[in-house]
Amino acid sequence: MADYEVEKHTRLNRIPDRGHYDEKTVHSIIDSALICHLGFIENGRPFVIPCIHGREGRTLYLHGAKASRLMNESGSGKDLCITFTHIDGIVLARSLFHSSMNYRSVVAFGKGRILEADGEKIHALNVVTEGLCRGRWEGGRTPTKKELEATSVIAVDIEHAGAKIRTGGANDDEGDLSGPWWAGVLPVETKIHPPIPSEDLRIDPAPPQHVLDRVGDVL
Amino acid sequence: MADYEVEKHTRLNRIPDRGHYDEKTVHSIIDSALICHLGFIENGRPFVIPCIHGREGRTLYLHGAKASRLMNESGSGKDLCITFTHIDGIVLARSLFHSSMNYRSVVAFGKGRILEADGEKIHALNVVTEGLCRGRWEGGRTPTKKELEATSVIAVDIEHAGAKIRTGGANDDEGDLSGPWWAGVLPVETKIHPPIPSEDLRIDPAPPQHVLDRVGDVL
Repeated sequence: MADYEVEKHTRLNRIPDRGHYDEKTVHSIIDSALICHLGFIENGRPFVIPCIHGREGRTLYLHGAKASRLMNESGSGKDLCITFTHIDGIVLARSLFHSSMNYRSVVAFGKGRILEADGEKIHALNVVTEGLCRGRWEGGRTPTKKELEATSVIAVDIEHAGAKIRTGGANDDEGDLSGPWWAGVLPVETKIHPPIPSEDLRIDPAPPQHVLDRVGDVL
Repeated sequence: MADYEVEKHTRLNRIPDRGHYDEKTVHSIIDSALICHLGFIENGRPFVIPCIHGREGRTLYLHGAKASRLMNESGSGKDLCITFTHIDGIVLARSLFHSSMNYRSVVAFGKGRILEADGEKIHALNVVTEGLCRGRWEGGRTPTKKELEATSVIAVDIEHAGAKIRTGGANDDEGDLSGPWWAGVLPVETKIHPPIPSEDLRIDPAPPQHVLDRVGDVL
């Protein structure tokens, strides 16, 4: 797979070893995230809003209520920054200075455009839905015309993106290794647990296979 | 405890029931988050960067390498937006339109100022460290003068903040309740697991109590 072109917004100047620009790494971090943090500017102020996303190739899809400021601002062609973050551990070095976090993150830049055609919108919503729970598009009720009209869907073609990853243990200075301080990592795990069926189900409450398939996934 | 004043940047217009502005709710979401997503504007473009934070009263502390763009931009008094998000579940409604996420989030606005005095910086770093792992400030090696000089610490007094929370199951339309589609929630949990001691420890590798106290915490 190709690499994202490195440019000044995505290049890591400090600790460049943590930077990754290949599609495989960048896309796997995006795809395993349940949400992203969407940054945009409104009236000269920055806003950061958590959003559900889907990805197809180098395109991100976001959706929201048609009336929302978020959708109107983000879909108007302005610059966006979309960030995806997983926390994998609290790194407790002997020195607080070298204490850190294990993480996987992607920062992506692009401009948003509102999708107008119903076919495009349905395709994007399918990508979002299937990204969250594969098989759900067939397993749920698809949107009506009226619901589709009430929903804004935005496509963002990623112009630049970079991943940053830290793994492993504490990296203390040589002079601290003989000190009296404990060092190590507290792992942090985000996991999907067994489903809780709705109480008002009128069908067999046993979850379907596409829902069970998601159980145990560590993000 | 007091409430944050509600203003146009933090008021929820859609589904206002999900909005919370009391300090107890807002601060508990901030405090249980391991990281925040910091939004700022540089050269007219939005940036969203994951950061470790600490909180004391209505002040947030962030830190980073002195040389970093992040710290220089964020500490210069410009408007910042700092967002904290926990995902608690994937809500699978019968209709994809009503499918959603259970979450707790806070969006906070303020301006950043770089802390210059060593005493202020040490105090802020103590707040950040203790927020991540209570007892770690005493349990690790505190910063040297040189390390302190290499670190930028920023204080952000929160001007406005609002929390948004969704809990519970799927809320389907009455007409869909008799349909053939399963509905329910896939719970998502972020948890701190038992520590992994560094391989190069020269002291007893058994983790100290302040580290063990963090195990099992669900964020």
